[in-house]
This record gives sequence, structure tokens and C-alpha cells, in this order.
Amino acid sequence: MRKDKIVLGIDPGYARLGWGVIQRRGSQCFMLDFGCIETPKDEELATRLAIIDRELEKIISRYLPDDVAIEELFFAKNVTTALQVAHARGIIMLRAVHHSGRIFQYKPAQIKQAVTGVGNADKRQVQEMVKRILGLREIVKPDDAADALAIAITHVAFTF
Amino acid sequence: MRKDKIVLGIDPGYARLGWGVIQRRGSQCFMLDFGCIETPKDEELATRLAIIDRELEKIISRYLPDDVAIEELFFAKNVTTALQVAHARGIIMLRAVHHSGRIFQYKPAQIKQAVTGVGNADKRQVQEMVKRILGLREIVKPDDAADALAIAITHVAFTF
Repeated sequence: MRKDKIVLGIDPGYARLGWGVIQRRGSQCFMLDFGCIETPKDEELATRLAIIDRELEKIISRYLPDDVAIEELFFAKNVTTALQVAHARGIIMLRAVHHSGRIFQYKPAQIKQAVTGVGNADKRQVQEMVKRILGLREIVKPDDAADALAIAITHVAFTF
Repeated sequence: MRKDKIVLGIDPGYARLGWGVIQRRGSQCFMLDFGCIETPKDEELATRLAIIDRELEKIISRYLPDDVAIEELFFAKNVTTALQVAHARGIIMLRAVHHSGRIFQYKPAQIKQAVTGVGNADKRQVQEMVKRILGLREIVKPDDAADALAIAITHVAFTF
């Protein structure tokens, strides 16, 4: 990975999609931006997916990330939710492939390990380490965005 | 539905995606085209999704369907397959929304009922009725394409 590589991390979802953009410079990671795409509950899934696609396109064209990284799909509390998240993941994957030719995926345990050094770290530990690694004053809110930054940091750790 | 409405029916999948285009003229449905998008087994899901998106875009720009109809996602034999199909469905939904503003979804029982008059018809009965309704000489092959035409016929039945 070249020194100034820009990574977009995404925490996939259809109701809330967290995203975070970081840049590796020298031996450090800097946070460029983060946020959360929220879609209206009362809209049909197809419309919500179109909103996600449009907002994702804006983020990608603003930051032109070298790589896009996403959390691997794991079986959530219920299958219906997992299936709807999978619809959104399809769109994220497509955007990533169109932009940079591929997408990188990491398992939750890989993300925890890379960010905290412990594969079974809790959410709070991950958020605390994201804050420290990126030299931020506060823990990133919302959680979705903090998770997305953790995924981006993981990608840097795996490819640097 | 105006008389000459063109409907694209899609049987969603990531390994094989069946599609069929029909046109309603007067009281009859005519088959315009059908096919099956197949994606290479040895490619990553993201690449396979990009192939589906590209081929779907070609079909939509060739036939400019007024409406796009798809089978509702039901729980397949295994969840992993259902999740991968859901990735492809996200892309199909996005293409449909971009082209015509929305997507129509039908349950398997609705499709069987609309095509054969029986909600628990078997695959062969559906294929036979698709052949008859569209005035074809042979049963449509592969099955994925026959299913897609059945979905398009269902949409006509529900909206005419």
C-alpha cells in the first residue's frame, strides 16, 4: 500500500449505513471524514437502496478512495434483517467494483483483532482504539460510523 | 396497463438469472425475448454482481420495459444461498428503480395462481401454461427463463 492511500470503510446496512474515510500517511492513519447514511423507514426497500447508492456515489466521487473495505456478512439476530442487509451489500459491492475494481472484506474478529489486538474485544474497546489510532478527541458517533472507521483501519493493517 | 405495455420479468439469482420480456397487445401476451445470465463460478461474488448489472443494463436498454417484475425472496434450502441471491436482488431492484421508478414483486403462489389458476401448481404445469399463454411451440428452456416469463405474465394479470 503506498503511503498516502485513501481507504473507505463501510459498515453495511439498509436502514443505517456507516462509512468512514481514512488516509495512511507515513506510519499513521488520519481520519478524513465519516458519517451515516440513513434511509426512511416508511419507504420501500427498492427506494431505500436507491438512496444508499446515490449517497455512496457522492462519497466515492468526493474522496476517490484507492480501496473500499466492508464487513463480511454474518448471520444477524434474524434472517429477514440479514437478507435486507444483503440487498444493500450487493449495491455497495457493485459501487466498489465499478470504482476500484474490487472490494475487500473482513470478518468481525479480524476487525477487532486489527484494531485492539484482541479478537473478542467489545464494541467500546474498538471505539476507544479507533479514537486513539486516528488521534481524535472524542469517540466517533454514531456507532455505525465508528465501525466503518474500524474496518478502514483493519484494511490498512492488512495491506500495509 | 396500456395495451402495448412491455414487461420484463426476472427470476433472481447470482449464478443464473432468468429473464423474459413480454408485450401485452389487446387481450394477448407476446413473447419478445428471454434468456439467462450466467456468471462464472470461479469469480468472486462482487465480480459476478458486476456482470449481472452490466447484462441487465443491456436488456433494459434494448427493450425499455414499462415495468420490471421480480419474484419475492423466499427462504431457499440454505441461508447462504438466499443471502447471495439477496445481493443480486439488490442490484436488480436498483436497476429497475433507476429505469422505471419502482419494481413489482410477486410471491411464488401468486405466480402459480396467475399462470395456471392453481396456487400450488408444479414447475412443469407452470412451464406448460407459459408456453400456451405466449403461443410458443416448445416449452421455454432453461427453467430460469421460463420462470421469468411466468413472473412477467403474472404482472400483466395483476395490472391489466
